[in-house]
Amino acid sequence: MVIPYEQLLHFTISVFRQIGCPEKDAQTAAIALLSADLRGIDSHGVARLIGYVRLQEAGRANTKPNIRIIHETPSTAVVDGDSGLGLVVAPFAMQVAIEKAEKVGTGWVSVQNSNHFGIAGYHALQAVQQDMIGIAMTNASALVAPTFSIERLLGTNPICVAVPAGEEPPFVADLATTTAANGKLEILQRKSEDAPLGWIQDKDGNASTNPHELKTGGALLPLGGDRDHGSHKGYALGAVVDILSAVLSGANYGPWVPPFPAYVPMPTGMPGKGIGHFLGAMRIDAFRPADDFKYHMDKWIRRFRSATPADGHDKVLIPGDPEREMEAQRQVSGIPLVSSVVEDLKTLAAKLKVEFPAQAE
Amino acid sequence: MVIPYEQLLHFTISVFRQIGCPEKDAQTAAIALLSADLRGIDSHGVARLIGYVRLQEAGRANTKPNIRIIHETPSTAVVDGDSGLGLVVAPFAMQVAIEKAEKVGTGWVSVQNSNHFGIAGYHALQAVQQDMIGIAMTNASALVAPTFSIERLLGTNPICVAVPAGEEPPFVADLATTTAANGKLEILQRKSEDAPLGWIQDKDGNASTNPHELKTGGALLPLGGDRDHGSHKGYALGAVVDILSAVLSGANYGPWVPPFPAYVPMPTGMPGKGIGHFLGAMRIDAFRPADDFKYHMDKWIRRFRSATPADGHDKVLIPGDPEREMEAQRQVSGIPLVSSVVEDLKTLAAKLKVEFPAQAE
Repeated sequence: MVIPYEQLLHFTISVFRQIGCPEKDAQTAAIALLSADLRGIDSHGVARLIGYVRLQEAGRANTKPNIRIIHETPSTAVVDGDSGLGLVVAPFAMQVAIEKAEKVGTGWVSVQNSNHFGIAGYHALQAVQQDMIGIAMTNASALVAPTFSIERLLGTNPICVAVPAGEEPPFVADLATTTAANGKLEILQRKSEDAPLGWIQDKDGNASTNPHELKTGGALLPLGGDRDHGSHKGYALGAVVDILSAVLSGANYGPWVPPFPAYVPMPTGMPGKGIGHFLGAMRIDAFRPADDFKYHMDKWIRRFRSATPADGHDKVLIPGDPEREMEAQRQVSGIPLVSSVVEDLKTLAAKLKVEFPAQAE
Repeated sequence: MVIPYEQLLHFTISVFRQIGCPEKDAQTAAIALLSADLRGIDSHGVARLIGYVRLQEAGRANTKPNIRIIHETPSTAVVDGDSGLGLVVAPFAMQVAIEKAEKVGTGWVSVQNSNHFGIAGYHALQAVQQDMIGIAMTNASALVAPTFSIERLLGTNPICVAVPAGEEPPFVADLATTTAANGKLEILQRKSEDAPLGWIQDKDGNASTNPHELKTGGALLPLGGDRDHGSHKGYALGAVVDILSAVLSGANYGPWVPPFPAYVPMPTGMPGKGIGHFLGAMRIDAFRPADDFKYHMDKWIRRFRSATPADGHDKVLIPGDPEREMEAQRQVSGIPLVSSVVEDLKTLAAKLKVEFPAQAE
């Protein structure tokens, strides 16, 4: 089933409004959430809408938050999200970072007391629209085992760095700090296919190809997969995200990060508030004239894009290429939804008395 | 052969002085260089001293540079290293970042016209001493093929993030954005051993285990190794380092980064000046009271260090643990040198009329 973007957006705004979001927040949240569907990261888009609703129903997400700065300097701030949806809290925090960058060159905002914020790329790209380099990261509930461990202590903790160019489209590096994101495991589960070695381990720390391994105590592996292939680097990167997002802000970290599914019990002994994000904006012309930078960024992109491909590959990609091509296509052709997601959305439509898009039938 | 640290330091200072460095710069450079030997990253320490001397002899490194800020805002600067040794330029730039962080919360310095700066960890740790989070990265000459490419377009482009703690030692994530750093290949070459799959490819882009592959057109692989294991993420991270270090500063990037060995011809059509670095400092108390942060950072470290290890492993490490343990040991026991390095140092001693440490015989 395929639904035109505008209709899915309208539906999603209505759902957020029905669970208590003010109109402006409902729009902000829906646009941020559906940016994942547009960009082809289906696991983080409207498929999660029912999850956000359940968080609100469980009293774990506040749809009328008083989001505010609780500490700041000219180039930094800590934002308290007041248990709001990360889809609303993170855009607020990125706006703070952008305003600080306008004044003193860069702005850096660590966020406590938030919930999941969708895809990092959406938030980082807000800065790109202002001729700034945007940085976005978030921690998440623990699914990943540090190198040599059988315990899950880190989330998939993504990092995005988005960089404006001139005539070329922006460079957008948006990556989970694991070998593969959890969404890729879900795809394999649906297809009943094995995962490549290096993605997951079983409960005893042995390499595994079973995509269901996480249900029986297994773990995702840090980028690198094993020690010989640099998993200690993926672990270190995921740890940096956790520290900047949560230890710096006063959010929960490590195994204490609240889970996204509302039916999973909260961790005990939580040391902070909610989950944490870290957002940054750097004004290009705080370093060199923006036109000079863009000239060289275009040159960088063209040189890499024209690199000689290996046999069996058409071309070398620039980070952000696949997602941008998907977005251009889906803006026109609509958002494809698997049947389980359609069922969830219909359930929401009935419960919240929101009309489900007609084209969806 | 093992040489006490203090004697090797004295020798190294003398060498830098003899090639024209002012006394203070010679000390700065020697301390930065030998921090690699102390921390066990032997490929980046005194083994490279002869390489720096050759750069000076070839007119590619300026030992009396006029290092200066060429553009700045309250939280940013671009530094022109005037072709100086990166071992001197980067400490200058990190000091600028620290001073800006003292005033406005954070400081971010992109550097052009520099040379190799040793290990990223040394520079990031300068900020930790001031209760700041330190960030250091640098680009380097191209040895790494982007995903799907057979061309070498990126250096091993390391990133370090160093974070102060309270009673625990600092967290230090210091990593090349490749599966394995070039120094590890050199070790395998000396031992005539094969590399694991996922470290290198041959000139046609096929997976290879031959550690000599780079001499015949092969390439190091980005962290992840291949597309299935996330090499596009390692490529994206290496690209971010290149962009922040060089496109932002006006240094050379991609395939145009000058080589470290002075006998390798310079690239043609270079778009910038020298190599580039990017250094950052974030004051902890620009986000939350330093004592609160340190309490939680200690808690983070202790939780991860006490994680249940997998069979066959004693314990889970915190990023920075191995290097700190090595430093404590080598401060006492001295720096071990392989015979080829001893020969290089004796050559330098004779040529520059510097006394070689007596204990070395």
